[in-house]
Amino acid sequence: MSDGGTAPFPLAVLASGEGTNLQALLDSVHGHEAEVVGVASDRPGARALERARAAGVSTATFPAAEFPDRAARDEAMAAWLVERGARAAVLAGYMALLTPGFLGCFPAGVLNVHPSLLPAFPGLRAVEQAVAHGAHVFGVTVHFVDEGVDTGPIVAQRAVELPDATDPAEVLAALRPLEHDLLPKAVRRLAAGTLPAPPTTR
Amino acid sequence: MSDGGTAPFPLAVLASGEGTNLQALLDSVHGHEAEVVGVASDRPGARALERARAAGVSTATFPAAEFPDRAARDEAMAAWLVERGARAAVLAGYMALLTPGFLGCFPAGVLNVHPSLLPAFPGLRAVEQAVAHGAHVFGVTVHFVDEGVDTGPIVAQRAVELPDATDPAEVLAALRPLEHDLLPKAVRRLAAGTLPAPPTTR
Repeated sequence: MSDGGTAPFPLAVLASGEGTNLQALLDSVHGHEAEVVGVASDRPGARALERARAAGVSTATFPAAEFPDRAARDEAMAAWLVERGARAAVLAGYMALLTPGFLGCFPAGVLNVHPSLLPAFPGLRAVEQAVAHGAHVFGVTVHFVDEGVDTGPIVAQRAVELPDATDPAEVLAALRPLEHDLLPKAVRRLAAGTLPAPPTTR
Repeated sequence: MSDGGTAPFPLAVLASGEGTNLQALLDSVHGHEAEVVGVASDRPGARALERARAAGVSTATFPAAEFPDRAARDEAMAAWLVERGARAAVLAGYMALLTPGFLGCFPAGVLNVHPSLLPAFPGLRAVEQAVAHGAHVFGVTVHFVDEGVDTGPIVAQRAVELPDATDPAEVLAALRPLEHDLLPKAVRRLAAGTLPAPPTTR
């Protein structure tokens, strides 16, 4: 329960992979403006889970194979996170779509960080898409999640000019520091209540 | 006729409006790497025409109303420009689509400058689209023109972060200097033959 605004904002993080954005949150806002109360993953082997445990944060895995369908998986995941007190969620490299039921459990919003300047290059392999398109400017977007694929309202964006980019891995490496700067800033604003209202998905 | 590479590259410019990008070309590459051999407009009242005349550049207008269809208008416009020796064309605020027949008359390519980070926000009122979408990063793209709407290969892009933008006019004002820097640089590369080949449209 909140003690009236002085307690850190209780936050869930979902991650599927390496977890560098989770680490950025753990190293910055965690224990200050926000408290990461649980890290959930669809992949039991995700390195993000190790990072959470190393920071003393509870973890749980929800592999699709263990549930009859996506709705059931998302329901179980939301229940675990809400039980831990989470009022918002951050997708930090979480690679699956979320059901409206999941989104509805987090009234303060669900944030995602995406490695393109949305609305350009939504979906998977965004950096590869951008390189293949011949983009000279790349960037990252933090946005509220809605029921579409990377379609929700934009919260923050940063850009980097890489006019000679041909290697997606190099572009991604250039984008990482932007993500690690932008996402904690967005979470601080979420915790402070200074973001616009999230989209309604119910 | 070329004297083997030392003469300025003969360039056509198409403009519909104010002509600030034309002015940027007249003030930079014109008479140096490139020679603007003619400025064509679909609008007789375009301020761009005055700018051309002030620089001693020939002008002609091709209003749609004076031709049976777009193909006839574009054919007449291309004929006038080719007769003046143009080998490439630059759309500097030219607000009409061009026929494949027009594009085919300029083997070195047709360049356009567009006020968004393509592929985001193609078409008319790009800045208004971006502001309405809630973009935090804006930008300009120079690209080769093909038969689509702002779909051709990207030649250059520049971005500016305006996270609090709500006024399209202010965003456009912020983008103008980027256009005026980027377009002459692209024309220099075109004249020097260091751009990738333009798309084939025939």
